[in-house]
Amino acid sequence: MLSKSQISFINSLKQKKYREEHRLFIAEGAKIVPELLNSAIVVKQVYATSDFLRNNVILATVERFEIKENELERISGLTKANEVLAVCETPKYVLDNESLKGKLTLVLDDIKDPGNLGTIIRIADWFGIENIVCSSESVDAFNQKVVQSTMGSIARIKVHYTSLTEFIGFQISNFKLPVYGALLEGKNIYSEKLSSEGLIVIGNESRGISEEVQKLITDKISILSFSHFKSGGGEAESLNAAIATSIICSEFRRR
Amino acid sequence: MLSKSQISFINSLKQKKYREEHRLFIAEGAKIVPELLNSAIVVKQVYATSDFLRNNVILATVERFEIKENELERISGLTKANEVLAVCETPKYVLDNESLKGKLTLVLDDIKDPGNLGTIIRIADWFGIENIVCSSESVDAFNQKVVQSTMGSIARIKVHYTSLTEFIGFQISNFKLPVYGALLEGKNIYSEKLSSEGLIVIGNESRGISEEVQKLITDKISILSFSHFKSGGGEAESLNAAIATSIICSEFRRR
Repeated sequence: MLSKSQISFINSLKQKKYREEHRLFIAEGAKIVPELLNSAIVVKQVYATSDFLRNNVILATVERFEIKENELERISGLTKANEVLAVCETPKYVLDNESLKGKLTLVLDDIKDPGNLGTIIRIADWFGIENIVCSSESVDAFNQKVVQSTMGSIARIKVHYTSLTEFIGFQISNFKLPVYGALLEGKNIYSEKLSSEGLIVIGNESRGISEEVQKLITDKISILSFSHFKSGGGEAESLNAAIATSIICSEFRRR
Repeated sequence: MLSKSQISFINSLKQKKYREEHRLFIAEGAKIVPELLNSAIVVKQVYATSDFLRNNVILATVERFEIKENELERISGLTKANEVLAVCETPKYVLDNESLKGKLTLVLDDIKDPGNLGTIIRIADWFGIENIVCSSESVDAFNQKVVQSTMGSIARIKVHYTSLTEFIGFQISNFKLPVYGALLEGKNIYSEKLSSEGLIVIGNESRGISEEVQKLITDKISILSFSHFKSGGGEAESLNAAIATSIICSEFRRR
């Protein structure tokens, strides 16, 4: 049985302000929660149906509440509640600037759409990119929609928030890391030589990469549409930010 | 001034049943509607603010209604109404089986998420793929969420619905088109020879490509995650359907 204060506490975590105050976030569903239970993420509480509790191994340190489906509906942020809701500790990641040498790192310049950020985190996980550095104005990685669309990858990828100009400037002057960014005038990514280390900057959904950050890009690249190869096809003006990220990461990794 | 019957008519088009009955669909926003007005899509009505009507060229054949923003809110399906809503004729496309020779065609096996289908339509447009053939159970391409996430590409890409086993079987026996599908046991897409014609099958978000359709795949391919190249990275179990589509299309087109 859920108490009123439990319901209001869990619902409060849908707001960034309360997530930050309590350093907690929510994940839901029979696919993602078991992944988090098996990860480095500390799961504090699990609110689940008897079926879920019977079929999953849950450490004794996790507080558990057996609830009915109609109770789950009252705390769920999903269109259709799915067996379990977990309250988890927000991990604290320290961005070790030196550790980025020899690696690829994604840099997100004001990604605002939760689904896009979640999908980008999942892409990073697929392509073995450990760190994502976001501008301070980007959507919160522990927003519930982000968490859900990472499909569990939120447990493995470190997402940091900072001033991009300071961060990129520091990386350039201290480690001479190349800074890649997709810009209209960039060189064809399909034929360009790509490094196995560096920063890959992805711009905001509507305005692209901001002017200040553009100035710091050392290697301008461009994903050519089919109209560049053959006239008559490929008229879309742009690609969704997550789609562009996947094509760029795929090109970096296939070499 | 909007009448009650206008409001209820437009809202009815949010349901597939009424879209099919009237052969009409809805598109919204100052980015997409002007694209549709300039496309082969027949726009029947435009409900717009005075600003939008002043700043856009609209053919005399389009019935127009100047409305206030608070009226637009009452018919809009967006979180935030955006200047204009258009009622458009659903185009009738005939699938000319013979016309697919020499081209790449996307085949979607029960894509259910509107955002995924919209993004896939946008990807097709980017990569110059004219036709998308969907299983009958796939989400409707004229669902408003699909239309919005195509960002205007809905005006250029022909989306067909049919039985996939019949369609693919017919293509194989009559035109010997290769049928590509991403499967776990597939060959590395990054090194495999890829044709410039054929069908590319994308599976459902949770269960992948159905068994019956798998039997018809002639060329099994696989997008390798980073863990295949280097141990220790790349632990995501799968890629989102639209992301997989973008990586596959990018690989076909870069050759």
